[in-house]
Amino acid sequence: MKWNDLEQEHCSVARTVSVIGDRWMLLVLRDCFLGVRRFDEFQQRLKISRPMLADRLGKLVEVGVLKRVAYQEAPARYEYRLTSKGIELHPIIMAIVHWGDVHMSGKAGRPLLHRHTGCGHLFDPVVVCSECGEEIHAKDVTVEKGPGA
Amino acid sequence: MKWNDLEQEHCSVARTVSVIGDRWMLLVLRDCFLGVRRFDEFQQRLKISRPMLADRLGKLVEVGVLKRVAYQEAPARYEYRLTSKGIELHPIIMAIVHWGDVHMSGKAGRPLLHRHTGCGHLFDPVVVCSECGEEIHAKDVTVEKGPGA
Repeated sequence: MKWNDLEQEHCSVARTVSVIGDRWMLLVLRDCFLGVRRFDEFQQRLKISRPMLADRLGKLVEVGVLKRVAYQEAPARYEYRLTSKGIELHPIIMAIVHWGDVHMSGKAGRPLLHRHTGCGHLFDPVVVCSECGEEIHAKDVTVEKGPGA
Repeated sequence: MKWNDLEQEHCSVARTVSVIGDRWMLLVLRDCFLGVRRFDEFQQRLKISRPMLADRLGKLVEVGVLKRVAYQEAPARYEYRLTSKGIELHPIIMAIVHWGDVHMSGKAGRPLLHRHTGCGHLFDPVVVCSECGEEIHAKDVTVEKGPGA
């Protein structure tokens, strides 16, 4: 399979991976959720080349995950903001953060803590079933063909 | 920043991305959660070269996400099984699947449906707060420095 075919494959993982399955994309998205919006700030934080960053930001705009918004005229300056489609990537980023917190933090402990403003507590993300509200474990999930199979 | 530095960075996204942030890794992990265990079956499904697949499986064993288990002697044959560290990647894969289901399925609809054997219903994954049980939205999360910052 070639990468260009991934988006066409009848699999939601493959399709999503065609959008976010590049390591820089995931780090750019992490920074977006931390409030980073401007090219120079992304560049300073990620320390990647400007063409490579421009490529990733352009791709994320193209797929509708980020939008380019003018924040200044004369000279025109743009910043990158998450669209609602982009904001819905939050559970992916949270799940990635949590696994890293648990398995990759080492003795030093977690680099960042997350607070839920709703209840005011530091929290971990927990995945539950939309129907019964119980926590979902891998062994409790079966798959069956859907309409798009 | 170089990729080799990612694991050292004080960020749980960067550290996790150093393990799973390769598109083939994510597709191999998807197949693991669908019950695939043997080299030839991975190869047949993913249609990637054998050396490339061997490299990805080897890396996943090295980081402790998969384990190589003999299922036959004379000749020795091995299969790849998720470790408990690997099974804990499930929320990431579920979140990726769900975003793809919602945003990339198009008119045909979802390719696969997920059933929660606990309650028997088709379900969507929902991320809730470990402390109050309410659904987590990006706008309701703030970050602060942890011990490993």
